[in-house]
Amino acid sequence: MSRDKGITSRSENYAEWYNDLVKAADLADNSVVRGCMVIKPNGYAVWERLRDALDNMFKDSGHKNAYFPLLIPKSFLSKEAEHVDGFAKECAVVTHHRLMNDPNGTGVVVDPEARLEEELIIRPTSETIIWHSYKNWIQSYRDLPLLINQWANVMRWELRPRLFLRTAEFLWQEGHTAHATYEEAEEETLTILEIYRRAAEEWMCVPVVCGIKSDGEKFAGADHTYTIEAMTQDLRAIQAGTSHHLGQNFAKAFDVTFQTKEGKLEHVYATSWGVSTRLIGTLLMVHSDDNGFVCPPKLAPTQLVIIPIGRGEDREKVIAKANEIADQVSSTKWAGSKIRVEIDDREKESPGFKFNYWEMRGACLRMEIGPRDLEAGNCVIARRDTGDKETITLSDVVSAVTQGLDGMQKNLFERAVAMRTENTIRVDTWDEFQKVFEGEGGAGFVVAHWDGTQETEDAISAATKATIRCIPLTPLEPSDAEPGVCVYSGKPSKQRVVFARAY
Amino acid sequence: MSRDKGITSRSENYAEWYNDLVKAADLADNSVVRGCMVIKPNGYAVWERLRDALDNMFKDSGHKNAYFPLLIPKSFLSKEAEHVDGFAKECAVVTHHRLMNDPNGTGVVVDPEARLEEELIIRPTSETIIWHSYKNWIQSYRDLPLLINQWANVMRWELRPRLFLRTAEFLWQEGHTAHATYEEAEEETLTILEIYRRAAEEWMCVPVVCGIKSDGEKFAGADHTYTIEAMTQDLRAIQAGTSHHLGQNFAKAFDVTFQTKEGKLEHVYATSWGVSTRLIGTLLMVHSDDNGFVCPPKLAPTQLVIIPIGRGEDREKVIAKANEIADQVSSTKWAGSKIRVEIDDREKESPGFKFNYWEMRGACLRMEIGPRDLEAGNCVIARRDTGDKETITLSDVVSAVTQGLDGMQKNLFERAVAMRTENTIRVDTWDEFQKVFEGEGGAGFVVAHWDGTQETEDAISAATKATIRCIPLTPLEPSDAEPGVCVYSGKPSKQRVVFARAY
Repeated sequence: MSRDKGITSRSENYAEWYNDLVKAADLADNSVVRGCMVIKPNGYAVWERLRDALDNMFKDSGHKNAYFPLLIPKSFLSKEAEHVDGFAKECAVVTHHRLMNDPNGTGVVVDPEARLEEELIIRPTSETIIWHSYKNWIQSYRDLPLLINQWANVMRWELRPRLFLRTAEFLWQEGHTAHATYEEAEEETLTILEIYRRAAEEWMCVPVVCGIKSDGEKFAGADHTYTIEAMTQDLRAIQAGTSHHLGQNFAKAFDVTFQTKEGKLEHVYATSWGVSTRLIGTLLMVHSDDNGFVCPPKLAPTQLVIIPIGRGEDREKVIAKANEIADQVSSTKWAGSKIRVEIDDREKESPGFKFNYWEMRGACLRMEIGPRDLEAGNCVIARRDTGDKETITLSDVVSAVTQGLDGMQKNLFERAVAMRTENTIRVDTWDEFQKVFEGEGGAGFVVAHWDGTQETEDAISAATKATIRCIPLTPLEPSDAEPGVCVYSGKPSKQRVVFARAY
Repeated sequence: MSRDKGITSRSENYAEWYNDLVKAADLADNSVVRGCMVIKPNGYAVWERLRDALDNMFKDSGHKNAYFPLLIPKSFLSKEAEHVDGFAKECAVVTHHRLMNDPNGTGVVVDPEARLEEELIIRPTSETIIWHSYKNWIQSYRDLPLLINQWANVMRWELRPRLFLRTAEFLWQEGHTAHATYEEAEEETLTILEIYRRAAEEWMCVPVVCGIKSDGEKFAGADHTYTIEAMTQDLRAIQAGTSHHLGQNFAKAFDVTFQTKEGKLEHVYATSWGVSTRLIGTLLMVHSDDNGFVCPPKLAPTQLVIIPIGRGEDREKVIAKANEIADQVSSTKWAGSKIRVEIDDREKESPGFKFNYWEMRGACLRMEIGPRDLEAGNCVIARRDTGDKETITLSDVVSAVTQGLDGMQKNLFERAVAMRTENTIRVDTWDEFQKVFEGEGGAGFVVAHWDGTQETEDAISAATKATIRCIPLTPLEPSDAEPGVCVYSGKPSKQRVVFARAY
């Protein structure tokens, strides 16, 4: 346990560390409804900023938001056969539309008279209901491309839920676009993949491998799937976002055609793509430590916390100065937004308690200021990621804060890149491959040759619980793109792919 | 029908006009799921701006966003008796959590093995699930006030749905706050009411009467309810937002207590408040006309549309100039955001078609520019609300556009105030009261004395279908606050109240 924070250390038990962290950082709670979570204000604030960053990038690339119904007629899920086989089974089913007073008691019961003719499913994803609408929206090549995104809640009945990482209900965005040609749809999936990479790397400080999924791991109903894959501190992979080229599958299932410039009738090409509140789990898994939440400054609910120190008469003076500093800093913009400052002037809590408290909650910078600092015209600023403390002249506070935020945003990314580099290895024999995955836990990224077949993929996964995370679009090292022989079958391989145990 | 727009005129059939309008303006569609709507990009863009305006005001007054589960255990709805009696009956009930392949066919069926132990309800509102959480969040007076807001979808099975105005699923925000004293909770409800008034009047250009609901019209489970009430063009009232003082009812039902400064244990005081996508319906009902959507500039998806006119060589020159103007205008800020400009350079459509198209969709200003304008260094700007056209020197375009937007924002509000004033009457006899409501439709606001009893309220409503919309906080005219005799019973009345037929 870390000091008195109630956080299990990562080395002791990583899974428990994660659960303790989410509680200690006040990010989310388990709900009374199995598998569903309550996202608390400190967690929701991170999501809001990430959402806005993504939303701006979607809009800058020509996408518009819309909103489609929560409930999907059961029959829709049967329309795209691969899609329903793939994953649509564990989902919440609405069968009735009314409650009534319990004739035998004081509570309420379901009114048996109010049974729906057709059951409705709470959307696990919205391809089917959206493509049902698109049939009416698309007639001609002039209606294309159709570039729509939706911010919504979705539900998949999870058997082993974990806060943020895998919950029955989660928040996400789902983009659904329609195009005149295969090539345009392909360009769209890659445009989005790049937006996801930027959100991960530039906002979350999480380096990702961009790649294509093997057929075994692609989205049910997709032609092919692109992914961004991150590495957690326990050396597993985590799929952080996916962008699917759906070919004409959904257009055919829902009969969505358009008249080409030449007057022919053709099915449109589709893409879909999404990231979810799982990104918050990814963020936590990559940066946080045994003292609590370490949050990239661009997303942090609190970028600077000021802790005034002193009692009695001194206290008032120090608090007055703290307020002055807070006003000054919070009217300054950093990375496009006003700097988010809190003053913790609670009287009954000790400075030590407050240091702990804000470390857990992920404040990026902590300023300590007491009567002696005041006299000397100084304050102390500590950084959450490195623990470095620096004495700053009060007149330099604003530039010290912006430099501190810059430095932390940069350092978190570099630290995560270094961790990934250190834990990415190239393996060329099956013996060595098995040895790497001997233990139960994560073993980093293993970059190895694969013969491209489903059988080999399945055999490797059965033997090691490692899966192909992706075939990188850009080789991690130039030689990864050279041909070789499969680590398992010895058959020819076009390039190395990334294996890992995954969340 | 208006020209060839397919919009029934308001005078012909107001209800059909509304439905035609929503379609013609491309704001929303009926969905295949009964009562649910698809909010299309043009409609969602209006909602996004209104949401951001509200969200900024909530945050400026100390509220934070959070997210609570979509599903509520059935038993929770029985906990606050008045609440469940009030409205929680028509709601979507989840009974199963899995589908399976149909053993007798190709589709999917509900897996009978996957029946939930306790049915779950899709939230019709979240008081119960949120107060269940608050029990853990609140221990001491130091945890208060707790000021939380949630943006979410909710569901109430509507028997007679209408797009935006009354749909089974809708989007809204719901605030849920906890306070140490009755007075603080009261202050909160009024702070929010003022935010709602500002959203309506300053953003939507919709004048509202702020008042308190009679006991017969208050929220189920509330101590009392404040409301903002608007008047539509067919002279009905529409409740646009409500702010409830819940007293200690929910705190008692969910046993949420706190330790006071003096060390005593007390139940907290609560408020809840919400506005929804119904506001879009309100907006439409107040401002739009037989030609389509009239949208307040601050909320309009398109503030300026540029329509280049000309063919062949001229066309290119004009389009180049249009793009230049668009760049210039869209880099200018108005009311805090960059001006939203579209160029309609579709080659196959006539200028007349485009004028109609953008009138329907609610573009605030339309700029026409052709080769002759170019030569003269001019363009023409037309305003959507008044139809006024003005020739503008090209060098003055930016100021003409900002003035046009200013003017329209102001005019829409003033026009709506004038309509309301014209259709607000004071009635002092029951004969006259009945006469006003003789017809079937709206009859404006009738400001009359009421004896304060439920019986009178019920009798008036039974006789005229008019209900008490509110007891205004500020009298519409000073004399409204003077005592008098009830228009129905002749008994003493403290003040006049507002009656109307309502949506």
